[in-house]
Amino acid sequence: MNCPKNNKCMPAAGASVEEFNLTAYLAGEKECIDGHLAKLMDTIPDTNLLKPAMAYSLLGGGKRMRPILCLAAARAVGVPFREITEPVLSTGCAIEFIHTYSLIHDDLPAMDDDNLRRGRKTCHIAFDEATAILAGDALLTQAFEILASPDIAEKTSPGLLLSIVHAIARAAGPRGMVAGQMLDLAAEGCKVSVDELQQLHGLKTGALIRVSLGAGAELGGASSDQREALKRYGQAIGLAYQIADDILNVEGDPHVLGKAVGTDAQRHKNTYPALLGLSASKALAQSLVDNALQALGTFDKKADPLRAIARYVVLRRY
Amino acid sequence: MNCPKNNKCMPAAGASVEEFNLTAYLAGEKECIDGHLAKLMDTIPDTNLLKPAMAYSLLGGGKRMRPILCLAAARAVGVPFREITEPVLSTGCAIEFIHTYSLIHDDLPAMDDDNLRRGRKTCHIAFDEATAILAGDALLTQAFEILASPDIAEKTSPGLLLSIVHAIARAAGPRGMVAGQMLDLAAEGCKVSVDELQQLHGLKTGALIRVSLGAGAELGGASSDQREALKRYGQAIGLAYQIADDILNVEGDPHVLGKAVGTDAQRHKNTYPALLGLSASKALAQSLVDNALQALGTFDKKADPLRAIARYVVLRRY
Repeated sequence: MNCPKNNKCMPAAGASVEEFNLTAYLAGEKECIDGHLAKLMDTIPDTNLLKPAMAYSLLGGGKRMRPILCLAAARAVGVPFREITEPVLSTGCAIEFIHTYSLIHDDLPAMDDDNLRRGRKTCHIAFDEATAILAGDALLTQAFEILASPDIAEKTSPGLLLSIVHAIARAAGPRGMVAGQMLDLAAEGCKVSVDELQQLHGLKTGALIRVSLGAGAELGGASSDQREALKRYGQAIGLAYQIADDILNVEGDPHVLGKAVGTDAQRHKNTYPALLGLSASKALAQSLVDNALQALGTFDKKADPLRAIARYVVLRRY
Repeated sequence: MNCPKNNKCMPAAGASVEEFNLTAYLAGEKECIDGHLAKLMDTIPDTNLLKPAMAYSLLGGGKRMRPILCLAAARAVGVPFREITEPVLSTGCAIEFIHTYSLIHDDLPAMDDDNLRRGRKTCHIAFDEATAILAGDALLTQAFEILASPDIAEKTSPGLLLSIVHAIARAAGPRGMVAGQMLDLAAEGCKVSVDELQQLHGLKTGALIRVSLGAGAELGGASSDQREALKRYGQAIGLAYQIADDILNVEGDPHVLGKAVGTDAQRHKNTYPALLGLSASKALAQSLVDNALQALGTFDKKADPLRAIARYVVLRRY
């Protein structure tokens, strides 16, 4: 399948890293992903009582970083720049369903109790708490329906898809993202070490980022060396992304971010700036970006989007 | 794989419907399933902060009706009485993970706000609300990790397993169980028709019961006629089971049930006894059991457990 907007969203196949226009690339990818997310939501009838809350949270913005990484990993190992296969796009979007469910549940009063997300009311404020819990449950379950759908299965190998379902469930479940959220809640009000904080984020945000890259690479036909390299890349940028998030919560612009800043300090949250200070946090994030770039050493220019994304992680303003 | 307790839990292969000892059969199946559920939980390290809440709700009792139906469907289409294949057992158990997550979330203060379940404190009372939400999320996600695990995949066909993942996600998701719970919440305080109530329960409890039978049948190698018949059986006993639940909430013994009775009437819930009266509700449940038995007309004695379960549905006291 070609991306419906591929003339707009893809760089010229021969673009070098210097010429690479990340802003245009990200905007194009986001447009393509947003379109596919909307298409996936269209399979749920409009009369469905959960659809408004699911669509509100899923289609109401977001950087789409996980599907973008999934697509970029597939491209880095060989899927041509101007083509996106439906299995890769749907897998990336299924991961975005999971990411969105996790945000809805994290924002609940019993958890982080946040009222604002992506510049809009959080799901339980816009609807109510019961609807938000169920919309989260629905998005998580729907993700697995998408991953295992016959439409995708017939375009790739069922064995490969099943192993991707397994990897994504593992990354999102009690030994992955959910464990990270539990550690995060348990750590509130406690002093943790940098190692403990790294473990927490490795689970809470890192696991889903790593599996986005891993799934894209698998579907793109990566070699085992390529998969290992992308794992190291994912490990590094996942953590750098979180450190950058912590930094933005200190010195970001709430209007650009679409959410309040200073909230981590108010809640005495364990963050990198709180543990290491702002300057050492920035240096750590930069060294992680360097590690990520190093991990891509053997990749050719097809990995330029991944390289540009790594640099962007610490430069982004939202 | 043989059931580790199969000497205890299986009836003699030639047992006729008259001789069939359902109590012993259900107790044996439950022991076998409880053992496998515990084994599946063992894959999560004891240091995992979510494990206690997951294990509390998953391993703290329950009739295991969904895995029992999954196993019975596989047997009805050919899996020998004294054998249970690991894919069938794990699939039934994965569905029990999903059922347990749905109970944890349904009991939350924002939903049904129940303090007692299976004779013990509900998860959010025994732990706290945030832990209960995350334990539910973890159980749901872990179910898909179990279904797609390489251990199971190598014992059956990946294509078949993928279609089972798809069917289970569909049954549990926004067009299945979660939609039923949303309809249930929306219907509180409103007057609904018998048809609407049937639709609600067809989603809230029926979808997962039907897919338990369907998945067991698929894994047991059912013909398309057998699958259709088991679908009709599931449709009928799923609804009969719910009507029996409503009746037990009126005239059950709270000590035997392990939960309070009369709560539906207090909350002005839409139930069959409220809509039709007790006597007509009992007659409807009985006629559904008759339909279920009729659906099994072409099956031989290997379907005796399913026949006995259908009769039990309206006779049970908890």
